[in-house]
Amino acid sequence: MDREGNLVERIARAFRSGGPKKHAKDGAALHLGIGDDAAIISPGKNDWVLSCDAFLEGVHFLAKTHPPDSVGYKSLVRATSDLAAMGARPRYFLLTLAIPANRTGAWLDEFLNGMARAARCLKIVLAGGDTTKGSVVSTSITVVGEIGSGHAVTRSGARPGDLIYVSGTLGRAQLGLELLLHRKIKASGLRSGRARRSDRALQDLLRPHLYPQIQLALGTWLAKRRMASAMMDISDGLSTDLARLGSASGVGARILAELVPRVAIPAELSKLAGGLKLDPLQMALHGGEDYELLFTVSPRNVKSLRTAPGFSQLKAIGEVTGGQSIVLIGPRGTQGTLEPQGWDPFRHQQ
Amino acid sequence: MDREGNLVERIARAFRSGGPKKHAKDGAALHLGIGDDAAIISPGKNDWVLSCDAFLEGVHFLAKTHPPDSVGYKSLVRATSDLAAMGARPRYFLLTLAIPANRTGAWLDEFLNGMARAARCLKIVLAGGDTTKGSVVSTSITVVGEIGSGHAVTRSGARPGDLIYVSGTLGRAQLGLELLLHRKIKASGLRSGRARRSDRALQDLLRPHLYPQIQLALGTWLAKRRMASAMMDISDGLSTDLARLGSASGVGARILAELVPRVAIPAELSKLAGGLKLDPLQMALHGGEDYELLFTVSPRNVKSLRTAPGFSQLKAIGEVTGGQSIVLIGPRGTQGTLEPQGWDPFRHQQ
Repeated sequence: MDREGNLVERIARAFRSGGPKKHAKDGAALHLGIGDDAAIISPGKNDWVLSCDAFLEGVHFLAKTHPPDSVGYKSLVRATSDLAAMGARPRYFLLTLAIPANRTGAWLDEFLNGMARAARCLKIVLAGGDTTKGSVVSTSITVVGEIGSGHAVTRSGARPGDLIYVSGTLGRAQLGLELLLHRKIKASGLRSGRARRSDRALQDLLRPHLYPQIQLALGTWLAKRRMASAMMDISDGLSTDLARLGSASGVGARILAELVPRVAIPAELSKLAGGLKLDPLQMALHGGEDYELLFTVSPRNVKSLRTAPGFSQLKAIGEVTGGQSIVLIGPRGTQGTLEPQGWDPFRHQQ
Repeated sequence: MDREGNLVERIARAFRSGGPKKHAKDGAALHLGIGDDAAIISPGKNDWVLSCDAFLEGVHFLAKTHPPDSVGYKSLVRATSDLAAMGARPRYFLLTLAIPANRTGAWLDEFLNGMARAARCLKIVLAGGDTTKGSVVSTSITVVGEIGSGHAVTRSGARPGDLIYVSGTLGRAQLGLELLLHRKIKASGLRSGRARRSDRALQDLLRPHLYPQIQLALGTWLAKRRMASAMMDISDGLSTDLARLGSASGVGARILAELVPRVAIPAELSKLAGGLKLDPLQMALHGGEDYELLFTVSPRNVKSLRTAPGFSQLKAIGEVTGGQSIVLIGPRGTQGTLEPQGWDPFRHQQ
């Protein structure tokens, strides 16, 4: 067998345990998965939701910093978050993987383990892909989800007067990234006399960055009940993504800084992180990769949110306006435009 | 607007003229294309065929050698060839594009022009994608095709006694690549006194490598009539791809070298290409990227092939056997195993 063929075999094996599951009535069925020219799927009556997402070494992750199983896990979770953002149920994915020859051994095994774990959690099945050599590791993942016809929630339905919600604390992934990149913390956190306790605490803080959770249950719940007028996931930071939602809907927004749920920096971390500037509000406004949902709700639907999955974590942070700009109201009533300052691959330099 | 948003706008504009077309009865309909979290498609009664394909600078093309519009054109054609190989009609595609910031100007425009031209030829509509910065240009394209339920032709249906066909001359893309990489030819072909004539002749020889054609009409014809027992496209070379088809079907094959359609090297080229070793049979057996179809036909169906699109180009090159190996019968009856020596990204070094 040729070497590329071998690689395809290994990938197929890594995901075999997750094989096609029974599917809901009206759901699609996978007839042919990896190994042929293409996958074949018989659709049911539902709408299909398709999205793709790239995850590149040197841009989205660093080879020496990020564990391979996190790279595998996160690349699939990130892509699937776009399905949550439409309210769709994940069904299938296709994986394009470019990888240097010297990482097709243990590195690849750990990467595939991480991705297979994510696939099990998300109940999404590998349906096909393409592998090739690359100078660095890069993945592009296409996800296919299903949703009742006409139920998908776009970015463009927000109306003035709607309340703006986020599904949980923002800035946690940014905090995790800062910690991971901060050598002093890594060294002291992992090697100090109180290694076990601080190690666990540190791992907890790193997790949102390395192994993010996404809001699938909430997304499908909101879509099924037509509860959200517009929805997206916060992948590039609230300031950037809210501007996109506003632009797509042709509306503006007023956000109250006080209401934006942000991380509390643990006291012991403040000591360790002596050199780090950690501003919880700034991380919440501009930090990327939280994958929380950002959605708008008509005032008449607000009461019904009480039975939503994870209701206690939902926070109203402001309201949709008829203007064009995103206005941030500060703690003392100060008012300013919230400029998009989240992640933009063409602005940031590594 | 953020810079990534700008890029998405430009991509959307490049493909706008091709916008969603009226679709056949029972066909799928695109409700929402680029710009939101994901594309939404209402499926019809047909089966769906999905595949993805990576195209990387330094692995599949060279920045200084390949014109950007060829990179755009070929990356989409390559991906769509997997749909032809199943007999499916192309419908939608998603584009992941990683690109260095310094190529987001004229280079990107030409790239998008080439890709938009391919999309018009193939009648395939851009439904979504992802853009990011990368150290080199890389694309991953996911294609979605439709086919009558149960009609897709896999690699696994070949049976002993079936005849093995290829849809046209093999080795043309390899010849084009050799010429493109051979500086002497480039210089003399483009600058000699007889520039116009030799230039045109050279362009004709380069075209199969730079702007490949794929066999969509033949593929759908064969699938619709259940005329092929197994089918795939020859992307990595006959020797490699026939081994894959044999392995998927659990069969072997006997190929007659005399019957393999190969390029005739023009006399004037032989002079120019003094330093080049150009063996038409070797290029036909192992050269990649021809995107001709390789398919097997039960003897009882052979007569019916006469009305196939491009029938005059179809060539029977051997037969399926009950063995496991691929045997090549040479011009004087010599017999040997045809080892897979086509393109394998993990063997070849640039």
